[in-house]
Amino acid sequence: MASTLRVLGIDPGLTRCGVGVVDVGRDRSATLVHVGVVRSDHELPIERRLAMIAAGIREVLDTHRPDVVAVERVFAQQNRNTVMGTAQASGIALLLAGEYGLPAATHTPSEVKAAVTGYGSADKRQVQTMVARVLRLDALPQPADAADALAIALCHAWRGGASGTATTTAALTPAQRAWADAERLARR
Amino acid sequence: MASTLRVLGIDPGLTRCGVGVVDVGRDRSATLVHVGVVRSDHELPIERRLAMIAAGIREVLDTHRPDVVAVERVFAQQNRNTVMGTAQASGIALLLAGEYGLPAATHTPSEVKAAVTGYGSADKRQVQTMVARVLRLDALPQPADAADALAIALCHAWRGGASGTATTTAALTPAQRAWADAERLARR
Repeated sequence: MASTLRVLGIDPGLTRCGVGVVDVGRDRSATLVHVGVVRSDHELPIERRLAMIAAGIREVLDTHRPDVVAVERVFAQQNRNTVMGTAQASGIALLLAGEYGLPAATHTPSEVKAAVTGYGSADKRQVQTMVARVLRLDALPQPADAADALAIALCHAWRGGASGTATTTAALTPAQRAWADAERLARR
Repeated sequence: MASTLRVLGIDPGLTRCGVGVVDVGRDRSATLVHVGVVRSDHELPIERRLAMIAAGIREVLDTHRPDVVAVERVFAQQNRNTVMGTAQASGIALLLAGEYGLPAATHTPSEVKAAVTGYGSADKRQVQTMVARVLRLDALPQPADAADALAIALCHAWRGGASGTATTTAALTPAQRAWADAERLARR
């Protein structure tokens, strides 16, 4: 393994699919490589929408050649109007990982929040703030799907992907510390 | 359009994905072209399972070159243990249709049952019996996923795909008549 792990994080969606690539070092430092959103027009038939999502993800895979793909886990309990499209998009993200010979992992929204902010019930703004801080970005990543994709990638690396260790509560400590720093700064 | 419509029906699943190809004439007569099941080992990681499902569907597309792909619609209300895998497999079936430049359609289980047997609440055995009868098979198609895939393909053709007309209740009449025939034979 190289000294850094390049992770492609994917926030699956049919209308907007967030994609974020980060390099994470063994010391857990992280650098932004790419962030974006793959869109599909809701007026197109589903088969063409899914093909657009796949083409967009393939472009990121070809250009940035990640070591691993991390996808946010979809639950059947979510909003029923969109859950099937989200599940189908997540299936395509995982399929492409398999076809590129890359390992894939899924993480729940609360795992992502806990890994990035130290709080499993953090709100979106807290997650975005931490992502921007960790990656030393001048502004919060926009739109939210793009920020979520970066958070998923960071979560994957910090939960053991970069260090190669299994997930432990202790693995959250640097994120918790960083979040406390961010909170302190925000209070100034 | 050729005088027959070749339909690939797909009963999406992660462990067993039914695939059935039929040629359906303008007179609604139908001929079996191919039937099978694409399997993936549940011990493999999800990204490799999905890649196996995709490879199996691609093989059918390459070999039999259907005009259209019909996929059974998945609902979030179904069994939560399997619904996500089923939704992901359905997304891959639809994606491949899009990537092969083919139109795709989804049909609900009750639409399939109604189209094939005349009864929206028909049981699996009734559907299998009708599929075997319509396609002049000596035995019921096995396993059930394979029979379901053929039923989805027949449903798609009969609901207007072959005749090019919109779905109407009148479109069910030949299936209802065939089912009545099958029932009468079964009573002998």
